[in-house]
Amino acid sequence: MRHAFHEDLDKISDQLVEMTRLVGSAMSRATTALLDADIQLAQTVIDGDKAIDAMRESIDELAIDLLARQNPVATDLRIIVTGMRMSSDLERMGDLARHIAKVARLRYPDTAVPAEVRAEIVQMGNVAEKIVAKAGSVIASKDVKAAAELDRDDDAMDDLHRDLLARLMEGPWKYGVQSAVDLALIGRYYERFADWAVTVSHRVIYLVTGEWDEGITSMDHEEQEDDATD
Amino acid sequence: MRHAFHEDLDKISDQLVEMTRLVGSAMSRATTALLDADIQLAQTVIDGDKAIDAMRESIDELAIDLLARQNPVATDLRIIVTGMRMSSDLERMGDLARHIAKVARLRYPDTAVPAEVRAEIVQMGNVAEKIVAKAGSVIASKDVKAAAELDRDDDAMDDLHRDLLARLMEGPWKYGVQSAVDLALIGRYYERFADWAVTVSHRVIYLVTGEWDEGITSMDHEEQEDDATD
Repeated sequence: MRHAFHEDLDKISDQLVEMTRLVGSAMSRATTALLDADIQLAQTVIDGDKAIDAMRESIDELAIDLLARQNPVATDLRIIVTGMRMSSDLERMGDLARHIAKVARLRYPDTAVPAEVRAEIVQMGNVAEKIVAKAGSVIASKDVKAAAELDRDDDAMDDLHRDLLARLMEGPWKYGVQSAVDLALIGRYYERFADWAVTVSHRVIYLVTGEWDEGITSMDHEEQEDDATD
Repeated sequence: MRHAFHEDLDKISDQLVEMTRLVGSAMSRATTALLDADIQLAQTVIDGDKAIDAMRESIDELAIDLLARQNPVATDLRIIVTGMRMSSDLERMGDLARHIAKVARLRYPDTAVPAEVRAEIVQMGNVAEKIVAKAGSVIASKDVKAAAELDRDDDAMDDLHRDLLARLMEGPWKYGVQSAVDLALIGRYYERFADWAVTVSHRVIYLVTGEWDEGITSMDHEEQEDDATD
């Protein structure tokens, strides 16, 4: 029974890793769809989000079942509760990829990304793909040191976000208000995506150490994020 | 022991209601600060967010303690798990109020809201205050019918959000790109705030009925939200 229980705990971890793969693929396709004005690709992201949502539900059902049947305490309880939180974080990341795909679809056959800021969006897409892949590795490895490294990727994203907003706001911006509004929202979606990945990695740190470091609370990410939009 | 347990469950509910009050107050002050360019008031929202975060932590600690000590099943388990989710939803709502206060602070001594869209922001603030107050009542009363009514307030917010974006995008918009970017983000903060309030109310429905209606999943709010930005 305890053996089966720990297999179930591993299953939660495996499904979370699989979720990072789905979310990473969604974000990669959303970025390409956005840059290339590829409406078919955008649609695959929008339609595929249901599979990410379903995986979250599957993880949560397993977690609640384990809470009810196994009366977990201490570390096991922490794994289950944290697993439910991570599934929710990853679902939000999937939603953000879908938001980006929707902008791509909305502006088709045009692209929402003028040539002038294409390089920034390409880089934000790269950082997003990298950070979610790292989050997946960290969930699998429980490597606290690797988990802490995601903060640096998030810093890189914050810098890119700040640059993008500066390009829009400190102009001259010759592509009009609609384009600026699109890019402000797109920038926020990428930035939030990285924030959630960091939150996932900090949850792994919490799992391993039992410590939720004040310096790494989600509130502080938000502070960083706000600073980026300041 | 079971008596004390149910007192603890009530305590979670009471603290969630108190969180809705704190979040509602924060949003009310954030809106006033934004409209009146009141930097002191904005600062109270920014500083006060720590109290909202602390209340979430307090709820989660109590919930995890109950999971460990009481081995809850069925309805009791659902109350605890759902309580943790609602505390997280409400914390996000507090963050959104803080984001709005930060825009107010950033643009001080100017206001980020030109006279032309002031009426829309006033209305969005009103709907935001109303919807979070209703969420608090619904948590306290467990009234499923009242919970479902929040969808209508959310629809009103979606309409206001759509109007605001139309004002920006279908111009002429004479206040420049920075102002449009500010308002696009502000609009999204209000709109997301209402989405989270709806999510809270749907969690109450789930608590009471055990059913998470497909038609009321957070994914569908997101769909609505996306449509609003389309």
